[in-house]
Amino acid sequence: MVHAAYPLTVDQPYPREQWWVAAYGAEIGRSLMARDILGERVLLYRTLDGTAVALSGICPHRAFPLEMGRLVGDAVQCGYHGFTFGSDGACHKVPSQSGVPGHASLRRYPAVERGGMVWVWTGAPDRVDPALLPDHDRIGLGGPGWTVDYQKMVTIEARYTLLIENLLDLSHVTFIHSQTIPGGEKVAALPVDVVQDGDRLTVRRKAVSMPANPMIRAQFPGQEGAVDQEFDAEYWGPCLIRTGGTISDHATGQALGTQNFIHMITPAMPGRLHYFVATTRDFGSDNRALSAMNLAMGERIQPEDVAAITAIEQVLRSGTILPREISARVDNGALRVRRLLEAQIRAESVSAAA
Amino acid sequence: MVHAAYPLTVDQPYPREQWWVAAYGAEIGRSLMARDILGERVLLYRTLDGTAVALSGICPHRAFPLEMGRLVGDAVQCGYHGFTFGSDGACHKVPSQSGVPGHASLRRYPAVERGGMVWVWTGAPDRVDPALLPDHDRIGLGGPGWTVDYQKMVTIEARYTLLIENLLDLSHVTFIHSQTIPGGEKVAALPVDVVQDGDRLTVRRKAVSMPANPMIRAQFPGQEGAVDQEFDAEYWGPCLIRTGGTISDHATGQALGTQNFIHMITPAMPGRLHYFVATTRDFGSDNRALSAMNLAMGERIQPEDVAAITAIEQVLRSGTILPREISARVDNGALRVRRLLEAQIRAESVSAAA
Amino acid sequence: MVHAAYPLTVDQPYPREQWWVAAYGAEIGRSLMARDILGERVLLYRTLDGTAVALSGICPHRAFPLEMGRLVGDAVQCGYHGFTFGSDGACHKVPSQSGVPGHASLRRYPAVERGGMVWVWTGAPDRVDPALLPDHDRIGLGGPGWTVDYQKMVTIEARYTLLIENLLDLSHVTFIHSQTIPGGEKVAALPVDVVQDGDRLTVRRKAVSMPANPMIRAQFPGQEGAVDQEFDAEYWGPCLIRTGGTISDHATGQALGTQNFIHMITPAMPGRLHYFVATTRDFGSDNRALSAMNLAMGERIQPEDVAAITAIEQVLRSGTILPREISARVDNGALRVRRLLEAQIRAESVSAAA
Repeated sequence: MVHAAYPLTVDQPYPREQWWVAAYGAEIGRSLMARDILGERVLLYRTLDGTAVALSGICPHRAFPLEMGRLVGDAVQCGYHGFTFGSDGACHKVPSQSGVPGHASLRRYPAVERGGMVWVWTGAPDRVDPALLPDHDRIGLGGPGWTVDYQKMVTIEARYTLLIENLLDLSHVTFIHSQTIPGGEKVAALPVDVVQDGDRLTVRRKAVSMPANPMIRAQFPGQEGAVDQEFDAEYWGPCLIRTGGTISDHATGQALGTQNFIHMITPAMPGRLHYFVATTRDFGSDNRALSAMNLAMGERIQPEDVAAITAIEQVLRSGTILPREISARVDNGALRVRRLLEAQIRAESVSAAA
Repeated sequence: MVHAAYPLTVDQPYPREQWWVAAYGAEIGRSLMARDILGERVLLYRTLDGTAVALSGICPHRAFPLEMGRLVGDAVQCGYHGFTFGSDGACHKVPSQSGVPGHASLRRYPAVERGGMVWVWTGAPDRVDPALLPDHDRIGLGGPGWTVDYQKMVTIEARYTLLIENLLDLSHVTFIHSQTIPGGEKVAALPVDVVQDGDRLTVRRKAVSMPANPMIRAQFPGQEGAVDQEFDAEYWGPCLIRTGGTISDHATGQALGTQNFIHMITPAMPGRLHYFVATTRDFGSDNRALSAMNLAMGERIQPEDVAAITAIEQVLRSGTILPREISARVDNGALRVRRLLEAQIRAESVSAAA
Repeated sequence: MVHAAYPLTVDQPYPREQWWVAAYGAEIGRSLMARDILGERVLLYRTLDGTAVALSGICPHRAFPLEMGRLVGDAVQCGYHGFTFGSDGACHKVPSQSGVPGHASLRRYPAVERGGMVWVWTGAPDRVDPALLPDHDRIGLGGPGWTVDYQKMVTIEARYTLLIENLLDLSHVTFIHSQTIPGGEKVAALPVDVVQDGDRLTVRRKAVSMPANPMIRAQFPGQEGAVDQEFDAEYWGPCLIRTGGTISDHATGQALGTQNFIHMITPAMPGRLHYFVATTRDFGSDNRALSAMNLAMGERIQPEDVAAITAIEQVLRSGTILPREISARVDNGALRVRRLLEAQIRAESVSAAA
């Protein structure tokens, strides 16, 4: 039921040859933690030297969830019969006998920590490639000159594609976020431009000569004149979408600064996703009030999107007969992303079949 | 699981070429309201001139539930991206562009408001026929000389056929309602007569020379002598069953009056139904105490039936092995209704296949 | 989903030609009680002469659950339309008519009450054989010279095989019960011996020269010297596993006494089981404090096992990809029991097909 065609018409609901955010770095420590990622239970912890580790979270002995076990140094001891695995996944010890069974090991997920996020590679280990990560410098996730604020992670009862579609059609801002996003009431009426660069695609909108609202004046003290503001939605793959963009003084055309919302989406299982959001800006780095304002705004906006996509998920799960889908011209970007994602998934099944 | 054979052995669980009650008229107003009917989400509201409207409740743009949108005059504006539809279902407006996509419309359900009920036709629009509605005058639903009292609608976690079967075998009154229906303890022992008139079928019982109980004396002040009381169950199709009947003075054979319970049943989805009950009487029209007594009695009776049919539904869903069904002679009426309903459903699938 | 292969690779999840515990004798009385057993709803009560009766719990008339009816003498009257069945299952009475329909009866389950337990035979009635019951005398369940204490029954959301596997690999005691079972921290390291006798199989461990802990001193007042203690797990079929064993004085080799935990397991349905536990001992029969201590200990131990096996059940139901199973040498007993159980189930399907 959860696998209903809309908004993805392929059987396999997500690509696997892909990096995904497993957790904020700050979530992971010296306690065992499990998180469902692409239908697999992944165990997360740090070794004594602080390295983030991602292993399969199910003991291959009797399927006990390993987060109910404990850390012994850098190793994981199962809480049921004491089988113990190193941070490389290899089985080190079986109580009650001297050796360990051959082929006894946990799957290890390649993990990279960058910009405050821990990313894991869910594909074949020999295809892992850090160059496939989104370009953190370009989106300001932890690069020099950027300030980053992290919202709390939320797990949402909706297929991850609904959140991708939500973010790529920002005309919803006018209807859902008109009270929470300054200037948002204008977004639906802005002309749209779609720019594709390989597998990266940006849906561009620009509000021109917008009066400086209180948010703008808080971000750029002294700015009294009208501004031009970008409302971009940039798709970096199913794992990350950047929204926001550059704000400029309308009179001079001079850029005042760039503020992004970095939306990181990780399928938990069919019909459930994890949602990580960071705001990044290249101005006001010492301005704590701006950070607080961004986080407070994020906490008001997010429930509005969660309510929208879970409502759609409920419709899809209800088994009700769906009307034939219609789209507007403004949906071109989102529809092209659908095709990109379908092609990515299809390429994997072809390659798996070969 | 919910589609288990008993008590209906066809795949398609309900007929669609049929009128069903969508709501009490009093439930519908100038706020958007959604109700599941035959597995479809139906949007209900009134236009500015007071006409009840029933449209598909799911936006064809991105499957957003329309009851989360808002009314703009007589039109419905989707709460997600602002697509707007008239009360005829046609799309009037897509924000961000001037025209509207071809074939953009909501399904419109023909609706009729009568006797305090809003009925919708779930079949092909070109087959809609108000003459197929149950005869409101005959059952006293709003006709002249009749007083009608409406109970609260309840949604029950049971397939609708269980309620039909419940109502057509009133011998259950003796076991389930012996404390709540005056004279009910006698019903199981009354002789039964089944009268069929086309697709309408009545299971007739008559209690003869019953001492006038407090209910009778409240209904017919001054009646001290014994009465004859009908305990009919009249099937008007799967949407409506009338129970009750005429009460007469036993000595003279003179009719004192008629009191009916009008049971209106609407499948919400497989395994769930909406239940509307109205009492109608052709006496004591100015007697508010009688109305209050009827409603109070209804509120005590209904939970007893709900408990019974949800208990059976739970058995059916449990996956337990069911015993081979046995029936008594008294079940003839209910069994004939089963066959009528099956034939109705089968005729539709044949016609759909042709 | 619940039928996933691990830890049982056959389609039919339980053998039926088998005795199972339906209830503690003390649970059954003159009120109707229903319990799910092997996916069937079984009705339990006592006749006026005190005999425990087990009948199908679903009325064959309209699938009403019979525990919502009432006892009339030794007969069961359905609460919906009053069909009445004797304690042999035969239909005695149908209100509203004089005779009863042919083939109107409830399935009767052969039942035996022994050692405080009510056992039912779920197989073909003509194959019932009380000699197939576990030998109550040998395990001390109610025989002369034995004291028995009964824990409360619990229903657990896990397939019954997970509890069988739990009990047959007592190395889990070291990891799950190290705080609750005195001496338990040593169990995983004890050498293991597997003894099979037909379809009965015992996994034997013996702690040798264990210092007398407070539990031992409470059980055997005056015992100061070290003891030898058996940690057996004896499989009597899927319905009953005995753990525990004899405690001896290490210096003299003299047996001090035997204490068993009798674990009685009854599949309720796929993914759910009933768990009955009795402790039996052949010493300290007048020592009420020992009984209280045993029950208190049982109440601390049981939730630890429930947490473990429900955690595994959740993993199995989650649809997550399971790692390829590994086993240690210590699992030999449990693996042989798996094969015994599979063979028992397979034999039944062959016989059913023949």
